[in-house]
Amino acid sequence: MNQQDEGINPELFIRFRAFFIVLLLSIMGTSMFGQKMKVEKWGLFELKLTGPAGGNPFIDIELSAVFVKEDRIVQISGFYDGQGEYIIRFSPDETGLWTYQTQSNVARLSGQTGSFICTDPSDSNHGPVRISNTYHFAYADGTPYRQVGTTCYAWTHQPLNLQEQTLKTLSDCPFNKIRFCLFPKWYSYNKNEPYLFPFEGTPPSTWDYTRFNPDFFRHFEKRILQLGNMGIEADIILFHPYDKGHWGFDRMPKEADDRYLCYVVSRLSAYRNVWWSLANEYDFMKEKTPDDWDRFFKIVQAHDPYGRLRSIHNGSLLYNHTLPWVTHASIQNGSAVQDYGRAVLYRDVYRKPVIFDEVKYEGNLPQRWGNISGQELVFRFWEGTIAGTYVGHGETYLDPNDIIWWAKGGVLHGQSPARLAFLRTIMEEGPQEGLEPIDKWQNCPFAGVWGTYYLGYFGRQMPTAWLFELPKSELADGMKFKVEVIDTWDMTITPIESTFEIAKRDNYVFADKNGGSVPLPGKPYMALRIRRDE
Amino acid sequence: MNQQDEGINPELFIRFRAFFIVLLLSIMGTSMFGQKMKVEKWGLFELKLTGPAGGNPFIDIELSAVFVKEDRIVQISGFYDGQGEYIIRFSPDETGLWTYQTQSNVARLSGQTGSFICTDPSDSNHGPVRISNTYHFAYADGTPYRQVGTTCYAWTHQPLNLQEQTLKTLSDCPFNKIRFCLFPKWYSYNKNEPYLFPFEGTPPSTWDYTRFNPDFFRHFEKRILQLGNMGIEADIILFHPYDKGHWGFDRMPKEADDRYLCYVVSRLSAYRNVWWSLANEYDFMKEKTPDDWDRFFKIVQAHDPYGRLRSIHNGSLLYNHTLPWVTHASIQNGSAVQDYGRAVLYRDVYRKPVIFDEVKYEGNLPQRWGNISGQELVFRFWEGTIAGTYVGHGETYLDPNDIIWWAKGGVLHGQSPARLAFLRTIMEEGPQEGLEPIDKWQNCPFAGVWGTYYLGYFGRQMPTAWLFELPKSELADGMKFKVEVIDTWDMTITPIESTFEIAKRDNYVFADKNGGSVPLPGKPYMALRIRRDE
Repeated sequence: MNQQDEGINPELFIRFRAFFIVLLLSIMGTSMFGQKMKVEKWGLFELKLTGPAGGNPFIDIELSAVFVKEDRIVQISGFYDGQGEYIIRFSPDETGLWTYQTQSNVARLSGQTGSFICTDPSDSNHGPVRISNTYHFAYADGTPYRQVGTTCYAWTHQPLNLQEQTLKTLSDCPFNKIRFCLFPKWYSYNKNEPYLFPFEGTPPSTWDYTRFNPDFFRHFEKRILQLGNMGIEADIILFHPYDKGHWGFDRMPKEADDRYLCYVVSRLSAYRNVWWSLANEYDFMKEKTPDDWDRFFKIVQAHDPYGRLRSIHNGSLLYNHTLPWVTHASIQNGSAVQDYGRAVLYRDVYRKPVIFDEVKYEGNLPQRWGNISGQELVFRFWEGTIAGTYVGHGETYLDPNDIIWWAKGGVLHGQSPARLAFLRTIMEEGPQEGLEPIDKWQNCPFAGVWGTYYLGYFGRQMPTAWLFELPKSELADGMKFKVEVIDTWDMTITPIESTFEIAKRDNYVFADKNGGSVPLPGKPYMALRIRRDE
Repeated sequence: MNQQDEGINPELFIRFRAFFIVLLLSIMGTSMFGQKMKVEKWGLFELKLTGPAGGNPFIDIELSAVFVKEDRIVQISGFYDGQGEYIIRFSPDETGLWTYQTQSNVARLSGQTGSFICTDPSDSNHGPVRISNTYHFAYADGTPYRQVGTTCYAWTHQPLNLQEQTLKTLSDCPFNKIRFCLFPKWYSYNKNEPYLFPFEGTPPSTWDYTRFNPDFFRHFEKRILQLGNMGIEADIILFHPYDKGHWGFDRMPKEADDRYLCYVVSRLSAYRNVWWSLANEYDFMKEKTPDDWDRFFKIVQAHDPYGRLRSIHNGSLLYNHTLPWVTHASIQNGSAVQDYGRAVLYRDVYRKPVIFDEVKYEGNLPQRWGNISGQELVFRFWEGTIAGTYVGHGETYLDPNDIIWWAKGGVLHGQSPARLAFLRTIMEEGPQEGLEPIDKWQNCPFAGVWGTYYLGYFGRQMPTAWLFELPKSELADGMKFKVEVIDTWDMTITPIESTFEIAKRDNYVFADKNGGSVPLPGKPYMALRIRRDE
């Protein structure tokens, strides 16, 4: 079903009709209120319709609906779910009475009307994640979202019991985002066939790209929903190069690419935890041109009525993340988060949130991207954090059955996740507006909010003391601060008894008025949390 | 004279007329060849015309000319030079017979025709500097241009004897580019009034922005020409914030800004060593909006028929250098060139040449931007160089008369210039295509050309040996290399007697087949030059 070709009624007509429906339903509404379907805010409303099963409904049938609430009108594309079933899926973002009416080029699917009540969200539902304060994220209800992501590229393509194990692992993890591919993966350690494919056809490489496989998508969206219920964002990778023509999903014809994007976005965009990652290592997909990627972004943007987060992940050539359809930069570059002074540069350039979604993996593979230590990975998270950016986790410990978290999920073996949980707690206890670099470009290893909150990190240095001094902005003589010493590896937080009172030292710095220092244990990976006391 | 309002004849008419002129002149040409004016390629042709002096010729009179050579037609704007004199200035980029015809809204300035012979350039004339190989620069004749710039913001506004001294200093310096402001500077250490202003009016702040001061511009362009004759590019800063309303050039009305740009570009663009720097610390000019800067770029681009290099220099907020009218990124960020792993990120993001035009200054000012050591500045140049970027020099030693090189020129006191001359020689002896990072994002401190040329730099590390090993690309068993040890501070180049023959060591590295090392003196600031021997 190509949404681009769909005939859309002029807005005025829609508004007029919508007004009528609202009038009708608000008259009926009061008495019927008890019976009316209820959908929580940012939840899922689903309308299932029965229609033609013959021909090729995926391309023959056009179906959409307008959802109306007072002056809001949202146009939603439906999709064919096989066996004569059609679905229109909608996630309302305002409480109250919503009405709808369908449109189709098939009479029995067209002109269907109805309504539902959108209720307050349940306690664990904070809405979709959005950009907040230029460089950060927050849920739609304002709750800050501090990204601590992981990656299991092909977990939904593994045997079901392995998938269940992955979900179980995720349920007890620090990760509030997971990146994974819609298409299966063919790569080192990844030579198993999935049991479901997104298209009808004969594996490995004969596909009818005009016919999607509803079973595949029902399974895939079930996983999205399960992740959502655990509070985990689903960063869905729409294309990737780990195919090399084995199945051919990395080299579909242009029409197939575009139709695939429309279908996927129509099916999945209503899930509030969906993020769109246009590709992993987009530049390693030699069959695609730069123009293709721009077009893909525009298709996703045009067909997603919710404006879910959109990014694209690089190999060695960065996409131009300043372009307006990119909501945040998704970066592969491990060396950039070895130094907060590197990581901050992407933020400065893009003026958007930066997530270092791939920074090499904790593990023991022979490949150099897959054998950093747990200490090193946690170090990279902390460097990214004090740069005002976000980092992603990955794990690649060798396994006799090639079940490696990075691609297939399963269980975690590494030392980093516990420390990332610790970091996430510190981030979530931090300032509502997010951690901003303090005195950037001056080799100052602090992030926070000028004048009130400073999180410092010494990385591999092993200082035995830190002279209390902070860059001047928002500071004044007589201000008092409390300090905690954080061991980011041993996961301890030790408050310093004394209070530090500052005085101006020179044109750049305020320091403790008595020249006081914070004692430190001479170990690597130490941090400081400094908060205004009065 | 606002070029934007100028009536331009349809192209076909111009072509027809041009054909006629060419015909006429080629008939006359042969016999008159000896007498015809000669202008060297990339040199200056100047047509002076006499016209009205009354009213306000700067805004009343429109004047331009078409210059034609075979199928080339170039439209050139003229400008008013005061006292009834009008000038059309053109720099031809092809040898052979050029003809021209003027156009004006004043009859006596219109329809003037003529021709000249463009001859081969003289030995020292390599043409204007252009982008080359995406990240580098070359003169139009193909000669590589390795930028080693300096900055004297207000040197053309100082007493004449000081300006002469600056020129003398520059004549014996490594610098092949100088950044300086068109407007005078009002700032710490800069409280002297210039003797010429760009507008008619009464100092300090009463100006007629519709009337330029030809004396000012004749002086300014004389300096550009003198720099050009020394092989120095003039990076002209068109706006800057160091005025704070003292003269008010930082807060002119929009029409004055635009008219100023048109006049400046019409007057100066024909000088082949001109670069346009839209501003210094553009984001510190609080009277301007982001839209203003985009508009300024478009005006300069539209009015400069030569497409001279265009950039804009930041304070703390980077301009979006991915925009098409930016030819190269001009960056202020000293910390970025303390680490090649930082500097390279700008290159990756912008996919354009990067010049770190301000990295703090060698000197002894109390301000933190003005007191780095000569060692530190040279170190930053080298880190930038092995990141595949370019760096700029500046000097801020205190002076009893506030004559500081950074702003006023004069003489140099620092230790860095000699070392920058040494570095420039090494760059110029390097590969024609420029130094590219080797195995970027892998903490590999080498730049060069895979397989043939590697320039390594150890910065503040003090190794006593370097195990001969290089990343694998373009390498093969049996290749041989010669090594030189470079002391970047003591300026020595010491060849290593032995030849290194490589063998594959693992999936990432080739190493000397006998495990050979290069001995190093255990000092900081050492470099290696490794070249393929056979």
